[in-house]
Amino acid sequence: MAIQEMKQLLQNGRTGDLIEWLASFGRTDHGGVTRLLYSPAWKEAQLAVKEMMDQTVLDTYFDSVGNLFGRLPGSEAMGETILTGSHIDTVIDGGKYDGAYGIMASFLAVMRLYQTYGLPKKTIEVVSLCEEEGSRFPLTFWGSRNITGAYHLSAAQGIQDSNGVSLVEAMKQAGFDPDNYTPASRRDIARFVEIHIEQGIVLEKEQNQLGIVTHIVGQRRYTITIIGESNHAGTTPMPLRKDAVSTAAYLISFLTEKAKEVDRKLVATVGKLNVQPNVPNVVAGEVEFTLDIRHHEEAVIGHYCSAIFTEFQRLAESLHMEITVSKWLDVKPVAMDQEMGKVIGEIANKKSIRYQEMISGAGHDAQVFGSVCPTTLLFVPSHQGISHSPKEWTCLEDLEIGIDMLTAVLYQLAY
Amino acid sequence: MAIQEMKQLLQNGRTGDLIEWLASFGRTDHGGVTRLLYSPAWKEAQLAVKEMMDQTVLDTYFDSVGNLFGRLPGSEAMGETILTGSHIDTVIDGGKYDGAYGIMASFLAVMRLYQTYGLPKKTIEVVSLCEEEGSRFPLTFWGSRNITGAYHLSAAQGIQDSNGVSLVEAMKQAGFDPDNYTPASRRDIARFVEIHIEQGIVLEKEQNQLGIVTHIVGQRRYTITIIGESNHAGTTPMPLRKDAVSTAAYLISFLTEKAKEVDRKLVATVGKLNVQPNVPNVVAGEVEFTLDIRHHEEAVIGHYCSAIFTEFQRLAESLHMEITVSKWLDVKPVAMDQEMGKVIGEIANKKSIRYQEMISGAGHDAQVFGSVCPTTLLFVPSHQGISHSPKEWTCLEDLEIGIDMLTAVLYQLAY
Repeated sequence: MAIQEMKQLLQNGRTGDLIEWLASFGRTDHGGVTRLLYSPAWKEAQLAVKEMMDQTVLDTYFDSVGNLFGRLPGSEAMGETILTGSHIDTVIDGGKYDGAYGIMASFLAVMRLYQTYGLPKKTIEVVSLCEEEGSRFPLTFWGSRNITGAYHLSAAQGIQDSNGVSLVEAMKQAGFDPDNYTPASRRDIARFVEIHIEQGIVLEKEQNQLGIVTHIVGQRRYTITIIGESNHAGTTPMPLRKDAVSTAAYLISFLTEKAKEVDRKLVATVGKLNVQPNVPNVVAGEVEFTLDIRHHEEAVIGHYCSAIFTEFQRLAESLHMEITVSKWLDVKPVAMDQEMGKVIGEIANKKSIRYQEMISGAGHDAQVFGSVCPTTLLFVPSHQGISHSPKEWTCLEDLEIGIDMLTAVLYQLAY
Repeated sequence: MAIQEMKQLLQNGRTGDLIEWLASFGRTDHGGVTRLLYSPAWKEAQLAVKEMMDQTVLDTYFDSVGNLFGRLPGSEAMGETILTGSHIDTVIDGGKYDGAYGIMASFLAVMRLYQTYGLPKKTIEVVSLCEEEGSRFPLTFWGSRNITGAYHLSAAQGIQDSNGVSLVEAMKQAGFDPDNYTPASRRDIARFVEIHIEQGIVLEKEQNQLGIVTHIVGQRRYTITIIGESNHAGTTPMPLRKDAVSTAAYLISFLTEKAKEVDRKLVATVGKLNVQPNVPNVVAGEVEFTLDIRHHEEAVIGHYCSAIFTEFQRLAESLHMEITVSKWLDVKPVAMDQEMGKVIGEIANKKSIRYQEMISGAGHDAQVFGSVCPTTLLFVPSHQGISHSPKEWTCLEDLEIGIDMLTAVLYQLAY
């Protein structure tokens, strides 16, 4: 039935129907989607996408970590491949567009190109990347990083999910035998093109239909620990306190204002904060909070960090308190292909599509490819900026504009 | 053995030994003391104190909620009683001085007066109050409030400890039958005199040996809830955020600075703070924090609250966020007897005792009595300000000075 239904959907060619169909694999009670790497729902989805591609001219194959490819060979193939796609995995109870839309859009764009122009000059492959989110294992971009060679099977050693199942064992359960592993890395990828939902509110706010991503931000994450002195809230006069909460409050206010001051594209987020002992009538002795910093220029991140941590240090000394800063994530910014960005802008102008250049504040597979080959990332609007939620939604018109633009880009690159 | 030992201790009359002896009832593995209202350790301690008093001239009796009295009748008794003492209960793993020192000091002071001067003119009663801390049941000052008539047995209806044992059932288990309850309220209490450890660092810091308390602060406690918008930390530019954490940080910085500005004796404490969803890469949608405000003048508390809540309101409107303020405790400040305070200062001067007038930032039974009769509260230093901890400590010299001063006060009042 599934295949019959899918054949019918393919014949009708309605984007919305195909997205709903893919969302049926791993659908949750809340109307969301959960497809964790190598889980049964994930496997069903990858096999369904393969089946879908198999109904067409595409030659399908999996690599040894579970990335799925659908190949349309180029008539003037020079050993160079234009790769386009996104990721099949989701967060827990995520939406039906994050990743999935990019796969479906790439597939539909290539189908439309083939139907109109026949075989391309350069080989195009549609990819359904096995993993990007890091929702099951503490590891992100397992799919794309295996393709670029940044990861080898050995990177999975010792990696377990929250139930203690190892990544290697999970691979095996999904039918990808680590004993027969051959490196998934590719040297033929000349270009990567991805389309994705924005996962932010900028396009909708600006009433634009398309985002041409110029950079994917770099990210640093820190944990800041403030050690003060736990004291009686009634008997300790204000000047004698070493209050970790009010000190944290000052630092967070400072770092927030400084972020706005340093660069309007810089974001700094304190998302997690815990207080000890966390009792109403006790001056807190300890606060720990996280700091997530993102910008598309490494120098700006560096300048910002230096400014705030200098103030942290000054305050620690003046209050005789201990403030420690510990970095646990450092991802460099990646630029997307500038020249192609301009071309896309021109195409959009001709088509009267309202677009803007923008920076991606979220991580994407495009940043992994972007460090090894010219890469393009396009965004379609996310309604209210909601993502990683069953409420994730993009209107059909915007989905179609995205596919249309992706088709034009692939035409430029491969025909 | 216990009685034999206690008789010996009484004969030796060493304050330190008597304090250690009382701390043996409910002693914890950490060297602390746990005597929760109506628990076996609490009952043992009250019976031991009764036994101790029974070895002397004092006439002992319990009232129907478990306050223990040791009465020294006045030769010119006019139906007026000078009551002196403190509370027998402790917090969990508390120290050996909090409450217990006040009972022992009152007992020893009265013994010394009797040994030197015989019977007083006015009746003196030493009281070991059954409860002050509120550590077992969500109710404080159960002992003193029953004596002043602020509480009746009916106030205990529906009150349970964390194991679901009702206060009334616990009373029964400790041998105080609610069915035979007669109101514990007294109309003969002309004066209350309490000595207590400071539980703060002020006396030690000022190198003073005695604190004459002029006021016990009023307290208000609030819970403040900030509702913002949970968003992606990467894709939401700073100006588009409704970040509950940075808003809380601003408010806490503001209220802390404002507290210092309004009055140097005002204290404002945010001791408890919880963030939702509390994830590093998500802009927090909600923060809830408590605010504990204390000062000895109701007008100052009122002025301060009005200043900060006006700013909270202004900010909520300007950020289009919801900030709600909910009050869950409001205790009025209580003045101690000013005239007696002056007399004590003169006595201390004569004895070359280094003293200071001060405000109690912590609650004490004296505030309950202070609202119905002239009341005196004296403090001895707490080493490093540590209290509610096995590390609570006051040196013997300071303990003795306290007893000496209490003796002088009771002489003034009753002889």
